Amino acid sequence: MDTATNQKHDSQPYYVAVNDEEKIFTAAFNQGLSILLKGPTGCGKTRFVEAMAHKLRRPLVTVSCHDDLTTADLVGRFLLNGGKTEWVDGPLTKAVREGAICYLDEVVEARKDTTVVLHPLADYRRQLPLERLGITLDAAPGFCLVVSYNPGYQSVLKDLKDSTRQRMVAIEFDFPAPEVEERILAVEAGISAADAAKLVRFAQAIRRLENAGLREVASTRVLIAAGLLMREGLSAAVAAKTAIAGPLSDDAQVTKGLIKMIEVYLND
Amino acid sequence: MDTATNQKHDSQPYYVAVNDEEKIFTAAFNQGLSILLKGPTGCGKTRFVEAMAHKLRRPLVTVSCHDDLTTADLVGRFLLNGGKTEWVDGPLTKAVREGAICYLDEVVEARKDTTVVLHPLADYRRQLPLERLGITLDAAPGFCLVVSYNPGYQSVLKDLKDSTRQRMVAIEFDFPAPEVEERILAVEAGISAADAAKLVRFAQAIRRLENAGLREVASTRVLIAAGLLMREGLSAAVAAKTAIAGPLSDDAQVTKGLIKMIEVYLND
Amino acid sequence: MDTATNQKHDSQPYYVAVNDEEKIFTAAFNQGLSILLKGPTGCGKTRFVEAMAHKLRRPLVTVSCHDDLTTADLVGRFLLNGGKTEWVDGPLTKAVREGAICYLDEVVEARKDTTVVLHPLADYRRQLPLERLGITLDAAPGFCLVVSYNPGYQSVLKDLKDSTRQRMVAIEFDFPAPEVEERILAVEAGISAADAAKLVRFAQAIRRLENAGLREVASTRVLIAAGLLMREGLSAAVAAKTAIAGPLSDDAQVTKGLIKMIEVYLND
Amino acid sequence: MDTATNQKHDSQPYYVAVNDEEKIFTAAFNQGLSILLKGPTGCGKTRFVEAMAHKLRRPLVTVSCHDDLTTADLVGRFLLNGGKTEWVDGPLTKAVREGAICYLDEVVEARKDTTVVLHPLADYRRQLPLERLGITLDAAPGFCLVVSYNPGYQSVLKDLKDSTRQRMVAIEFDFPAPEVEERILAVEAGISAADAAKLVRFAQAIRRLENAGLREVASTRVLIAAGLLMREGLSAAVAAKTAIAGPLSDDAQVTKGLIKMIEVYLND
Amino acid sequence: MDTATNQKHDSQPYYVAVNDEEKIFTAAFNQGLSILLKGPTGCGKTRFVEAMAHKLRRPLVTVSCHDDLTTADLVGRFLLNGGKTEWVDGPLTKAVREGAICYLDEVVEARKDTTVVLHPLADYRRQLPLERLGITLDAAPGFCLVVSYNPGYQSVLKDLKDSTRQRMVAIEFDFPAPEVEERILAVEAGISAADAAKLVRFAQAIRRLENAGLREVASTRVLIAAGLLMREGLSAAVAAKTAIAGPLSDDAQVTKGLIKMIEVYLND
Amino acid sequence: MDTATNQKHDSQPYYVAVNDEEKIFTAAFNQGLSILLKGPTGCGKTRFVEAMAHKLRRPLVTVSCHDDLTTADLVGRFLLNGGKTEWVDGPLTKAVREGAICYLDEVVEARKDTTVVLHPLADYRRQLPLERLGITLDAAPGFCLVVSYNPGYQSVLKDLKDSTRQRMVAIEFDFPAPEVEERILAVEAGISAADAAKLVRFAQAIRRLENAGLREVASTRVLIAAGLLMREGLSAAVAAKTAIAGPLSDDAQVTKGLIKMIEVYLND
Repeated sequence: MDTATNQKHDSQPYYVAVNDEEKIFTAAFNQGLSILLKGPTGCGKTRFVEAMAHKLRRPLVTVSCHDDLTTADLVGRFLLNGGKTEWVDGPLTKAVREGAICYLDEVVEARKDTTVVLHPLADYRRQLPLERLGITLDAAPGFCLVVSYNPGYQSVLKDLKDSTRQRMVAIEFDFPAPEVEERILAVEAGISAADAAKLVRFAQAIRRLENAGLREVASTRVLIAAGLLMREGLSAAVAAKTAIAGPLSDDAQVTKGLIKMIEVYLND
Repeated sequence: MDTATNQKHDSQPYYVAVNDEEKIFTAAFNQGLSILLKGPTGCGKTRFVEAMAHKLRRPLVTVSCHDDLTTADLVGRFLLNGGKTEWVDGPLTKAVREGAICYLDEVVEARKDTTVVLHPLADYRRQLPLERLGITLDAAPGFCLVVSYNPGYQSVLKDLKDSTRQRMVAIEFDFPAPEVEERILAVEAGISAADAAKLVRFAQAIRRLENAGLREVASTRVLIAAGLLMREGLSAAVAAKTAIAGPLSDDAQVTKGLIKMIEVYLND
Repeated sequence: MDTATNQKHDSQPYYVAVNDEEKIFTAAFNQGLSILLKGPTGCGKTRFVEAMAHKLRRPLVTVSCHDDLTTADLVGRFLLNGGKTEWVDGPLTKAVREGAICYLDEVVEARKDTTVVLHPLADYRRQLPLERLGITLDAAPGFCLVVSYNPGYQSVLKDLKDSTRQRMVAIEFDFPAPEVEERILAVEAGISAADAAKLVRFAQAIRRLENAGLREVASTRVLIAAGLLMREGLSAAVAAKTAIAGPLSDDAQVTKGLIKMIEVYLND
Repeated sequence: MDTATNQKHDSQPYYVAVNDEEKIFTAAFNQGLSILLKGPTGCGKTRFVEAMAHKLRRPLVTVSCHDDLTTADLVGRFLLNGGKTEWVDGPLTKAVREGAICYLDEVVEARKDTTVVLHPLADYRRQLPLERLGITLDAAPGFCLVVSYNPGYQSVLKDLKDSTRQRMVAIEFDFPAPEVEERILAVEAGISAADAAKLVRFAQAIRRLENAGLREVASTRVLIAAGLLMREGLSAAVAAKTAIAGPLSDDAQVTKGLIKMIEVYLND
Repeated sequence: MDTATNQKHDSQPYYVAVNDEEKIFTAAFNQGLSILLKGPTGCGKTRFVEAMAHKLRRPLVTVSCHDDLTTADLVGRFLLNGGKTEWVDGPLTKAVREGAICYLDEVVEARKDTTVVLHPLADYRRQLPLERLGITLDAAPGFCLVVSYNPGYQSVLKDLKDSTRQRMVAIEFDFPAPEVEERILAVEAGISAADAAKLVRFAQAIRRLENAGLREVASTRVLIAAGLLMREGLSAAVAAKTAIAGPLSDDAQVTKGLIKMIEVYLND
Repeated sequence: MDTATNQKHDSQPYYVAVNDEEKIFTAAFNQGLSILLKGPTGCGKTRFVEAMAHKLRRPLVTVSCHDDLTTADLVGRFLLNGGKTEWVDGPLTKAVREGAICYLDEVVEARKDTTVVLHPLADYRRQLPLERLGITLDAAPGFCLVVSYNPGYQSVLKDLKDSTRQRMVAIEFDFPAPEVEERILAVEAGISAADAAKLVRFAQAIRRLENAGLREVASTRVLIAAGLLMREGLSAAVAAKTAIAGPLSDDAQVTKGLIKMIEVYLND
């Protein structure tokens, strides 16, 4: 338990910039502003944060948010040890002490009370009150709060409060342009440029569909999975059915439509 | 408490392949991808995972998911021992450390927060953050996450999040073809080929019904139960009423219909 | 605390078979199948299980299910003792270790997560994973899982999952035929055959009513209670009002109707 | 903590029988049946049970039920003492061991799971399984379970389950006849027969109202409170306004009506 | 921790009687009856109880009720101390032992289960069962239970049960008559009679409004606050805007109306 | 843990008064009244309280409220230490003991039960009952309770109770006048007066929009963030898109409108 960061990269993670996201991230980081990443599932937000942490030479602490994530899970808690209660820092507190980048993935999943604890940390105060210890920590230089969410999931129940949002600057993400996505696919899945192009054309077709009963379109992530299955010798059609059509929908009608598209775009 | 796996097979479990499911599973396993098994109750998903674990020579850890399964139940918790709190690994953590296949049966039953903990494990990172210990485990080689659910149960409340689904590749299951199912029935229930064929014909008839008030049709599992009762000397009709009609419905009208079908298909 | 069973019978419990329920129970027991008893309140399901346990010479463990019954209540939990946490088996675990019949009365009352823990035990695996101990128990020979519920109570919220139902064979119960019920009444309440017959005729009349505002009809159990009050010297009318009409309804209109029927059937 | 009963009476509690309730209670008690008392608030159910306990020479254990009453509150729990967990009996368990009358007041307030624990105790088994101790107690001779509720409050959410009701015999209560109520009033409040008669006439008038916006009518209990205030020198009108009109309603219109009735019936 | 009462008054608290409330309170106190105070926010209920406690020479224990107030908060609980659990009395138990007046402010806020624990204490029994200790306390002489609530807030969810109400006698409160309120204002805020009269005239005007979008009208309490601000040199208009209009409403339209009234009644 | 305050300022915080808020705050503070700050997100309420605490030479204790903030979080709790439970003061209790200003930010987020605990502290009593310790603290001189909320968020579920509101005096906040806001912007973000004026003009335009699908308008806080990004070399348009448009909305249509406004007001 001698490390406060859950990811350390010796080599720069593979990330291809799509827009001016690296420049904006760096400006916000330099000014100590908190950052909100918006974008669909599987478009590379997590990878981007890993790459920026490496570039800015800061440790990275990642927390996957969920309904049941309590403030104590982020901040820390007392644990009983030999009849004594001892305080154990949570990941956010560690990041604050070490000046790490703290990345809260899918922050809208967290309960609102959990995000409110971020307020004094996210604004000009850069402070984390540890009420149970009766102290307030000033964030170490280099600390940066980054949160992400998928605006497509937004609902009345699951939404960031305005007072949270207005404490952050926002960077928007989308799937990369076809030529960029092909390059990513070839590198990550280890498949030929031709196969990569074929998969990307199929993904573009799905992304053009609207009101097709799909809650989400094919992400770069599922294309890479399809590519990896192709590398194992499965045909493009079987790989796409397994890695793309299957995860995207359970609806018989929708699935039939996707299978037809696979026949058109991916049959040899 | 010296074993981390809850199933060890000395002999290959009896499983008859229906499609290319073994090939796809192996490809995904080789690439370290997570696997989603879709299919109705009682079609053999659990048995299939047991067979694949034996074939790939990996230990198997099975967890039956439910509403009340907490992240701590999967990952582990501190227990008080002699005035000291000691960490005890949960089944998922054990599987991650040992490179086992971890099978989460009926994963949609689990609370969404419990499935979010799977995210960094299910994607390219293959990591399990143990926030309460302040460390992050890299999954041992051979670790493979497999989850199953029944799309027929899907509801708005109980559904896998898209960000979870898109971290997996999907294999679809259905009941086996009649001749395969007859063979399974004869072997598993120890009844004659004729009796097995009779039961399968009855099951086929039920499966052809639509909008008959049944939420589920007769599964291979209930056919085996009927066969076992026949082996005890019950008539086919009584066995089918007990093992098939009774479990399928409580509705008087529906039950009457099933009894009539039993008279047609199973009376001597 | 030296016994794992909550019922031991020296003498065969009084039970009169209504149908082929004993034969089916024995067949399922021999094949290691789990058993689902369906039937209205007070028709003798509990007594039947007691009688079968005695006949098959297995210890019987009975658990009355309710909304708040947790998996830990069934399976066991750690209790603090002298600064050490010690595992204490729950009733299900005891039954699994001893090869007892484990009877879960009114199982639909239990939370769904509690029933999911039964899955690996109810199917061919006959295993009980004790996740908190990190081990999996194989059920001892003679272990048999029996659950009961009243289909008349069924609601969307309280219903057995199909994946639970299809792991069981079902035996249906109803009130006994008049002559059988009279015999039971005479023996259990110690009243004359004539009085027993009078009470049964009254019960039959109630059971013929439909849409009379009654959620349940008069069960064998309430007839016995009326008989016991008659033995204490109360008139048949007062006994029936107290033991039958009162428990069946609070509605003034419905009660008036029942009192009229009492005057017709039970006045001396 | 040397007594298991929360009420011991040296002298017979003052109770005037309204009907054959004492005879029925005694018959049910002799046969070991459980008893359900139905009736409006403040009609004397609690006093009746106290009187019967005294008459039958049994200790009395009373529990006021509420939404948050857990099974452990009734049955007992482990408490930590000097690093050891020690079992402490709840009131129900004490009553079972001592053969006391256990009276659960307003039982419909209790959660349904709490009432299910009564099932094996309420029927012919007369057993209390203490699952956390792994034992089952047989109720000592003289144990008798008595529950009460007010059918006027019944709602879909708060209702006794049929399987609970059918394990009991029911005794119905209503307000006493005028001459009986006058006598009770004179004795309990220590007022003159004339004043008692005046208050009862007023109560009768209120009880004749229907659809007057009152959820409950004036009970014997509130008449006694009015009488006690009169004994302190308040006028009948002020006493009735304070002890009857005030508690019965907050509605301005309804209160105005009650005040007018007070002027008619109680002004000097 | 050597005192069981949270308020001890050396001097008589300032309270001006509006009606016969002192006489009724004294009569109910003498007869051991429980008392229900009804009235709007800020009309002086709390002050009245303080004055009565002083007059009757009883210690006073006040509890502000809320949704989360558990029975244990009122009655007491076991606390761990040096490896031993020790019982610590709650405020209600202390009041019962010492014969204090126990005042539950805004009792409708408490959960219904918390009010049910008051039943045996509120009626003729005057007993507090401490189920976790296995004992029942008889209230010491002088103990008196007083509860208050605001009938204007009543809702289906938040309402006293009839069985609780009928165990109490009710005293109704309203704002004092203008001349009384002016006197209170002059004494409490230390302002001139003229200023006090001006504020009361303004309050009367507000109280005459109906259906003006106000959930509550101006209470004596907010008038005192306005007076205190005037004593600090703020103008009557600014004081009234700050202490009366601001707290009464957030609605722009309603606030505009109140400001206009301030201009009419309070501008110099 | 040697400090009870979570903010100590050596230098006066930068705050520009908009209205007579400092005078009113001082008057209320002098009279021991509690203060309610109303106003939109990011208009400077927190900074104002910091400035007043500095001016009045009181320590400041700030608590960010949320759904899950329990009374114990504010007041204190027992913690286990070496087998003994020790009481640890919460932030409110510390402020009460030290005579600090206690600022509860976004108090409507707190559960109503948590705000009820403020009642005896907020009115003339100035007392904090510590029920679990059995004592009542008198607030030290200089203690002042300040709460804030955003009336724009008000909903039926999240609203201060009238009995809480009427224990406070209210100060209303809005965004500063343009020339004041420009000055703040120039100082806080370190940008030129011309750039500051441009951003304020843009903000004014947004604030004039009504029914534009925005739940909140651009606050002073987001203008400062935009200024800070401009200081890092981003263009005014990119800075405004990142710090203003992104946080304000996820809606595609709304965002398009904001981008157009950026082109009009902020393009060079």
